[in-house]
Amino acid sequence: MKYKTVSWETDKIRLIDQTKLPRELAYLDCSNIEELWHAIKHLIVRGAPALGVVAGWGVYLGLRESKAKTFEEFFRELESTAAYLASSRPTAVNLFWGIERMKKVALDNKGRSVEEIKRRLFEEAKTIQKEDENLCMAIGEAGEELIKTGDNILTHCNAGFLATAGIGTALGVLYTAHERGKRFHVYADETRPLLQGARLSTWELSSSGIKVTLICDNMAGFLMKQGKVDKVIVGADRIARNGDAANKIGTYSVACLANHHKIPFYVAAPYSTFDLSIPDGSHIPIEERDPREVTEGLGRRIAPEGVEVYNPAFDVTPHSLITAFVTERGIIKPPYEKTIKRSS
Amino acid sequence: MKYKTVSWETDKIRLIDQTKLPRELAYLDCSNIEELWHAIKHLIVRGAPALGVVAGWGVYLGLRESKAKTFEEFFRELESTAAYLASSRPTAVNLFWGIERMKKVALDNKGRSVEEIKRRLFEEAKTIQKEDENLCMAIGEAGEELIKTGDNILTHCNAGFLATAGIGTALGVLYTAHERGKRFHVYADETRPLLQGARLSTWELSSSGIKVTLICDNMAGFLMKQGKVDKVIVGADRIARNGDAANKIGTYSVACLANHHKIPFYVAAPYSTFDLSIPDGSHIPIEERDPREVTEGLGRRIAPEGVEVYNPAFDVTPHSLITAFVTERGIIKPPYEKTIKRSS
Repeated sequence: MKYKTVSWETDKIRLIDQTKLPRELAYLDCSNIEELWHAIKHLIVRGAPALGVVAGWGVYLGLRESKAKTFEEFFRELESTAAYLASSRPTAVNLFWGIERMKKVALDNKGRSVEEIKRRLFEEAKTIQKEDENLCMAIGEAGEELIKTGDNILTHCNAGFLATAGIGTALGVLYTAHERGKRFHVYADETRPLLQGARLSTWELSSSGIKVTLICDNMAGFLMKQGKVDKVIVGADRIARNGDAANKIGTYSVACLANHHKIPFYVAAPYSTFDLSIPDGSHIPIEERDPREVTEGLGRRIAPEGVEVYNPAFDVTPHSLITAFVTERGIIKPPYEKTIKRSS
Repeated sequence: MKYKTVSWETDKIRLIDQTKLPRELAYLDCSNIEELWHAIKHLIVRGAPALGVVAGWGVYLGLRESKAKTFEEFFRELESTAAYLASSRPTAVNLFWGIERMKKVALDNKGRSVEEIKRRLFEEAKTIQKEDENLCMAIGEAGEELIKTGDNILTHCNAGFLATAGIGTALGVLYTAHERGKRFHVYADETRPLLQGARLSTWELSSSGIKVTLICDNMAGFLMKQGKVDKVIVGADRIARNGDAANKIGTYSVACLANHHKIPFYVAAPYSTFDLSIPDGSHIPIEERDPREVTEGLGRRIAPEGVEVYNPAFDVTPHSLITAFVTERGIIKPPYEKTIKRSS
């Protein structure tokens, strides 16, 4: 990984501006929370783990200039900072997770001075970032044995370093294998409607020295039929207790196609992605997004005015189609009703 | 069908300019073969059956002003006209088919005057057009029994009136059912890379009073999983003797997904699409097209410069995934090794 998606530089957050990729590698520095709010809102930074990290830094940015005299005053500022930050992308669960973690640090230290709490918030943001880097490394370690020299590997969306503070999850597995000297080739689904595969994964992989070929999502089946895909690896946004996994729309189709062609289908994600409170995928709500992502997201209008559009952001792949999960705690194989809980 | 994709108007060919859809319904008149060559080249007219019809008119356009005195002179002009016309889209099989049919009329009438041959070429072009209209009607008649009120029907690419001189093939079945008073709803795959579904099928269907919802290709599986698709109907470009069917890239993935969800998958096409000279789909060559269709076809560049791209224009769906064929000769069901030949 040559590039850091999120980093703290002396007194500001530095982000890769993902809206400029793949045309240009540019960084955006955020010295205050308003700049960061804008960066999240406009998808300059995206990806569930990366947003968790950014949330930590965001809370710190919003409070480091605080003039509060008492904890109560400080905590009121923290709550308004948190609400403002959360409003940048109200459906991003990891944003809330990062904010809550920062809140807890403040509450756990309410007896200390405001300056000391600020210092601890800074340390917590650093810890969240470091933890994410380590998680990615550990997922890569755990999964790299699945990758062989000569493999052709299909991936969907972007579960790479651009989605995390580290080397990525699904693509992190590939980077680790590549670093161990394995040589293989990746097919990247373009991933409509927002084209994270075309814009981000192809750029990440090729700039990391891994051979990659871009395809349209609807070409995956035909590739598999021709024997050109040896395995599939993707990320996940949320995984139920039984192993049903929510991920970017289109993942379920790829999983069905892999199953039809008897191709292994792997899901790489930190163990925290498992939500043991929900028994199965039917409890995962699916966000529907703006139709214009489909009809206008590509630079010009591609469908008639007023056309009805169905645009779910995610789909749920049932555990029966998943060969194994790759987590920082190792590879989790079926029967998931036993193995997922056992890993907890 | 309110609009005619191809028609002869007194002394010129009138085409719907499909490059302006869905933003605007505009017609282009071609009074000479150069204008028609340009229209084919730039996809103002497309769709296999429509190109067959246009080829007939094109040969006539190219020869109607001929000053040839002898058949030999006239036929040399015909051959150069034919070669010029064919160069507009060298991979379009139906273009060659239409040209060959016109050549045969000239050869069959070599004993007659040049003026009489011109008259017969005009009649042949008219006949080709009329035949295509009738074929579409007959396919619609044969297939409409498959469609029920309340159905949700998925289609891929554009096998509608914009692809033919008549009401279309797959969509022709839907138009016929709709005219019989059946009320149903269609999901249109956008059909990357060239977006025929988003640009053309949604416009056709909604302007014909049929409810349509646009989806990205990768959403079809998730729709099926939710029980939102009752049947699939698509067209075909070429069908082998055993029923393996080549159609727009992505059709095979849809067929696999339909099979996985036990959803009927129908292919509607004129019987002439069956190529009884090839035993199975492995004998159908798959054209690979310009990578820029994927990386730049949408108005702006969506992937890094120089990225490797795989862009097959078609794929082949094995007969085992096809529930039935709808042709002007009726519905053809398995076992195809018997039923396809029996229909010939």
